[in-house]
Amino acid sequence: MRIVVTLLTSCLFFTCKQQESTSSSSGYPNLILTKEGVESMRSSLGKLPLFDRSVAVARQEVDAEIEAGIDVPKPKDLAGGYTHERHKANFFTMQKAGVLFQITGEEKYAVYIKDMLLEYVEMFPTLGKHPATRSYARGKLFWQCLNDANWLVYTSQAYDCVYDWIDDETRKKLNAELFRPYADYISIENPRFFNRLHNHSTWGNAGVGLIGLVMNDEELVDRALYAFDIERESDLIDNDGGSLNLMGYKEGGFLAQIDHSFSPDGYYTEGPYYQRYAMYPFLIFAQGLANKKPELDILNYRDGLLIKAVNALVNQTNAQGEFFPINDAQKGMSLRSRELVNAVSMAYHYGGNDPGLLSIIEDQGRVPLNDSGLASAKGIDAGKTQDYQYKSMELTDGANGDEGAIGILRSADLTLVMKYAKHGMGHGHFDRLGFLLYDDLGEVIQDYGSVRWVNIEHKDGGGYLKENHSWAKETIAHNTLVVNKDSHFDRKVKVADRTSGTPYVFFTDKDVQIVSAKELNAYADVAMQRTMAIVQIEELENPLVIDLFSVQAPTGSRYDLPLYYVGELMSTNQEYQTNTGLKPLGRESGYQHLWAEGQAELKENNFKMTWFNGKKFYSITSCVRRGDELIFTRIGANDPNFNLRRDPGIIHRRTGGSTVFASVYEVHGQYNYSSEIPENLFTSINDLTVLHESKDYVVVQLTLVGDKKYRFAFSLNDKKESSNHAIDGPNGQLEWSGVYDFKKLDS
Amino acid sequence: MRIVVTLLTSCLFFTCKQQESTSSSSGYPNLILTKEGVESMRSSLGKLPLFDRSVAVARQEVDAEIEAGIDVPKPKDLAGGYTHERHKANFFTMQKAGVLFQITGEEKYAVYIKDMLLEYVEMFPTLGKHPATRSYARGKLFWQCLNDANWLVYTSQAYDCVYDWIDDETRKKLNAELFRPYADYISIENPRFFNRLHNHSTWGNAGVGLIGLVMNDEELVDRALYAFDIERESDLIDNDGGSLNLMGYKEGGFLAQIDHSFSPDGYYTEGPYYQRYAMYPFLIFAQGLANKKPELDILNYRDGLLIKAVNALVNQTNAQGEFFPINDAQKGMSLRSRELVNAVSMAYHYGGNDPGLLSIIEDQGRVPLNDSGLASAKGIDAGKTQDYQYKSMELTDGANGDEGAIGILRSADLTLVMKYAKHGMGHGHFDRLGFLLYDDLGEVIQDYGSVRWVNIEHKDGGGYLKENHSWAKETIAHNTLVVNKDSHFDRKVKVADRTSGTPYVFFTDKDVQIVSAKELNAYADVAMQRTMAIVQIEELENPLVIDLFSVQAPTGSRYDLPLYYVGELMSTNQEYQTNTGLKPLGRESGYQHLWAEGQAELKENNFKMTWFNGKKFYSITSCVRRGDELIFTRIGANDPNFNLRRDPGIIHRRTGGSTVFASVYEVHGQYNYSSEIPENLFTSINDLTVLHESKDYVVVQLTLVGDKKYRFAFSLNDKKESSNHAIDGPNGQLEWSGVYDFKKLDS
Repeated sequence: MRIVVTLLTSCLFFTCKQQESTSSSSGYPNLILTKEGVESMRSSLGKLPLFDRSVAVARQEVDAEIEAGIDVPKPKDLAGGYTHERHKANFFTMQKAGVLFQITGEEKYAVYIKDMLLEYVEMFPTLGKHPATRSYARGKLFWQCLNDANWLVYTSQAYDCVYDWIDDETRKKLNAELFRPYADYISIENPRFFNRLHNHSTWGNAGVGLIGLVMNDEELVDRALYAFDIERESDLIDNDGGSLNLMGYKEGGFLAQIDHSFSPDGYYTEGPYYQRYAMYPFLIFAQGLANKKPELDILNYRDGLLIKAVNALVNQTNAQGEFFPINDAQKGMSLRSRELVNAVSMAYHYGGNDPGLLSIIEDQGRVPLNDSGLASAKGIDAGKTQDYQYKSMELTDGANGDEGAIGILRSADLTLVMKYAKHGMGHGHFDRLGFLLYDDLGEVIQDYGSVRWVNIEHKDGGGYLKENHSWAKETIAHNTLVVNKDSHFDRKVKVADRTSGTPYVFFTDKDVQIVSAKELNAYADVAMQRTMAIVQIEELENPLVIDLFSVQAPTGSRYDLPLYYVGELMSTNQEYQTNTGLKPLGRESGYQHLWAEGQAELKENNFKMTWFNGKKFYSITSCVRRGDELIFTRIGANDPNFNLRRDPGIIHRRTGGSTVFASVYEVHGQYNYSSEIPENLFTSINDLTVLHESKDYVVVQLTLVGDKKYRFAFSLNDKKESSNHAIDGPNGQLEWSGVYDFKKLDS
Repeated sequence: MRIVVTLLTSCLFFTCKQQESTSSSSGYPNLILTKEGVESMRSSLGKLPLFDRSVAVARQEVDAEIEAGIDVPKPKDLAGGYTHERHKANFFTMQKAGVLFQITGEEKYAVYIKDMLLEYVEMFPTLGKHPATRSYARGKLFWQCLNDANWLVYTSQAYDCVYDWIDDETRKKLNAELFRPYADYISIENPRFFNRLHNHSTWGNAGVGLIGLVMNDEELVDRALYAFDIERESDLIDNDGGSLNLMGYKEGGFLAQIDHSFSPDGYYTEGPYYQRYAMYPFLIFAQGLANKKPELDILNYRDGLLIKAVNALVNQTNAQGEFFPINDAQKGMSLRSRELVNAVSMAYHYGGNDPGLLSIIEDQGRVPLNDSGLASAKGIDAGKTQDYQYKSMELTDGANGDEGAIGILRSADLTLVMKYAKHGMGHGHFDRLGFLLYDDLGEVIQDYGSVRWVNIEHKDGGGYLKENHSWAKETIAHNTLVVNKDSHFDRKVKVADRTSGTPYVFFTDKDVQIVSAKELNAYADVAMQRTMAIVQIEELENPLVIDLFSVQAPTGSRYDLPLYYVGELMSTNQEYQTNTGLKPLGRESGYQHLWAEGQAELKENNFKMTWFNGKKFYSITSCVRRGDELIFTRIGANDPNFNLRRDPGIIHRRTGGSTVFASVYEVHGQYNYSSEIPENLFTSINDLTVLHESKDYVVVQLTLVGDKKYRFAFSLNDKKESSNHAIDGPNGQLEWSGVYDFKKLDS
């Protein structure tokens, strides 16, 4: 926990410094920028390439907008449409113009902001609710208050930069006729947007709070921090199925969001895609509060949680810096996003100057134009950059860290993610004990992500598509077990939200890393436990992934265990039939979106399959029970608008009582289309056998090609290190001590 | 034609120099390396980073093999299997070891070659034909003589490097018991491999010729150059459906291969994938002949055709340096391939030192360890590198350049390829007038390529899969017209081989580039002409592609015009139905491999569709005739071994007599998953209308969003610049002069 200690020191130091600065600088800017910070930036110009480049890019963008002229159109469109995108571009440009005015001193930037705000203040009183009626909380400039809150968050920063440059009369007019009523609109007039615990509300809180800080409007700041008093309501849901439960004074607001949104490890229950989105208002409002209300000591709040959350976010990425697409998430969102440009630099500046973060900032290619960005650019210029050290870690979920977790195992080029966290509210997927696997090239076993093309108007305005509900959230769309054809929790968000997965063990020993967790609530009368291990095997070129999915359930249960492999099927060891016509695999619970391309009645001890992604080979070896079936699936049935990707998968189907699904996943070999030389293109696993399965134990034996044998034994209910275990195996007693045992057997 | 002139000068100069060197250096090496060349390489060591790196890589590879020990296993496996890959690795390693022996003088490399050859000479007399019986010409070490020829081509080079280092007795033994009988085996004993006109035979000729040159065995050299006398046979085909027609003395052999394989523009009738493969034996044997038989003046043969062929090859690539996958071709094969490393450096060294080639060599990251590689490394070190200037060009096909062509239009980021060449023999596809479209990101409209995973044993040993015949070669698998459900030429290779497409015009004016060609033989009673243009339109961000496919055919013909777009369908302007169950689209001619995912009865004047590849948007706008249908297809039906990619396509179906299919293709906008900001995501084409269509003319009018109008008029049968045309249009006469007219209309 070295990082946290350093963080505390750093934050305390920061707080002291800021208190001085606040007292000595009564003038503007003092929200995100400070007079001292601006001085520092000015004197660094021409000395720090990354900072200079970031200034140059901002200049280019803003100059182009100034050249194009101001346009403040009457609101009309949904996301992706002209008026939406124009107002969005306006607030981004104003924010940058404000910073440029401070750094360069060129008045044209201040004039641009003032002129634009004058157009907004003229238009604002004429606006009713936005004409599009899709949102539970319609905005003024935008179809949803969320975007109006975005506007306030960015525009507040611009306003702060020109606040004492603007004449008194104009300032009074803007305060009274634009900003205060706008802040009231998205709060008092839209309690369901503002007074709940949700990422939308975080934006609302930040927007109202930031403009309050700029105008020194304590009432707004107080409202932002603590929400406002209102009669509580419950059992309402928003467009995305999220809770709209209203919170009262001090039950809602910014501090309550921090209290409830993050676990003590900085994990955000909606998952990293939304955490990325929410981090910006969390951090930018925190920055404003740190500057203007140092007495709150916000950056040390809950043990420096906001900075810890950035580090949690950085760790929820693959080798390409892309976030794990847990829950509703558009794939490809990454550490390169706008929000993370601010967040990572803040984490560097206020979180103990971790030199590993500088490599991420270098990759981002730009820094925010503020103290954090300047500090990062200086660090990079001084040659302090190091590779970020990604480590295996378990990130707990829940405000108190006791409501499940996600487990992240990293070994060589492999990253394994297992989810046994909370449901994640309206954006959650029914995927308890699901997993994702990556290597250095990207996805090996994929999560579908959301069915949505964000902001792409062709696709229903860029919002969530109906297949997001009918496919992406369902259990069968994930790499986890479906019992009796129905999704977890009978697909009920409210029920799922009540409980979480149960962490069992999380080990990161040198040659064996294990994550094991239980899910006891997803199905009545069914207890599930998944144990995944990454083990080093000297004979193999890469670490091997062991997957033991144990179920205690009534006899006659039907199990479907899907695996969404990424690539082209090369071969299997079993005979199978493909179908000359395709039908959907079922009528509901997501099955209606799967074509059954083929099927096999599994025989022998193992099912083996190898696939290829154009660069490497991947193999699965699974234990087979008599009567098991395998279904080759293709996503895309019942997809009237071509909203789904035609990705392949397999489903291992079994009918029976309590059982264990045992598999290993292997990354091997390579191929290059220019040399056409394949290497190591076959699996090295000769056989996988379950030596023992019961309520309390599972033991498997692995035989490599060449006949070397390994044994993995696991105790499902007794994790004491001191416990000795002795159980029956096919060739006599199996004995070990502690929760697990992995060893090479004598040949 | 500046390049050719320079080339001639350079080659003449080279020839003179070589004549001197040959006379002055009677000793070895003198095949690919020369004593002077070796001196030059030695004295350059440590001075040229790219050359040094190439030496270091070769050293690393060979040292690792020496360390691992020699293995000369008994032949057993097909491609991909151990013995195949081992013998392949052996000849590559010997060739490098030979060069390293010369450059470094370290004897261990010579010893390695000698020891290995001693194992081969022991084994050779014990070998019958290879046990695998799949090939029409089974080899000794390999399943097909082709690979045995590869072995001779590489091993000859190694042998030359150690020829006078090896003791007399051993040399005599190797000559008499290994090399001469091996050369006889792949020639005299396998006439169907050696005495035909085919890339396989080129390897055979080169293998026999190179070992002949090393051993000063004039009989072998003569056989290599001119084949041997044999009774001619015809009407035989090989495993790939290629002609096995035997040629007699001076009708076959290396010189005849050059005569018949390339057009005067250096185009190779099988297409760039096989040209790449064939270039190595063509060039390496030519290098050997240039050194040892300068009197042949081989590099000036047919106007310096071999070097011209390398330039033709370089020009048949997309922005990623990947070859157009015309005919049987595995996608991804590129300028980075082993064969091109030698070829491009030779083209630089002997072809006039084009500084653009140095950028390709830099991208290859290595140079061949010979005179050409040294010259290239020196050029790069001297800072001479420039970007390669890709230009629009028509590459004629046929030995005399009068049998069709491929047309390549390049404009900004767009590359359009249209094929109206010869069939391409056994590896040809039935795709007359088919086209491919690329932008800077890669494929926009794709050709499927071949159904094969080269050398990947999982897939039927890495050879051609049966779907290559039943799908990839069929017309419906290409972006060209299918008439009455049957492939071109009734899918008969021999018939297709008899004729070629007919070039009509090829213009590369500044704002308008046009390729137009006719196909008169693919179907009885049907004349087809495709005219494709890339035009600059000031209102659009990218050039626009116009596609006018004219057909003269009997009434009642059924036309299917497929388009294999790359990406996800975003939207169309027409109502369509998707199917709740999928059936194959037909029973033969490739249709049996297409699922019909959906269909539309087209209405209105235009069909419009936009797709998205994750980074940019693409739109098609097509003119609709009453009764037209659109079918949304997905490849993958009747695919029992998962050999086909599940790629999407559309088929524009029309029934009628003579007609024109008019479309425009548009690249527009962008999107980034980190910013989630889409730009220009809708088509800018409001309407496309055919103003006139007849046997002799087609005129279309394009209306942009915003109502600007453009008109493109084309004369299909009169290409005289002086001709004046006046034809009827819906609003009066349309007049212009010359073959085409493209203009903006007054609003």
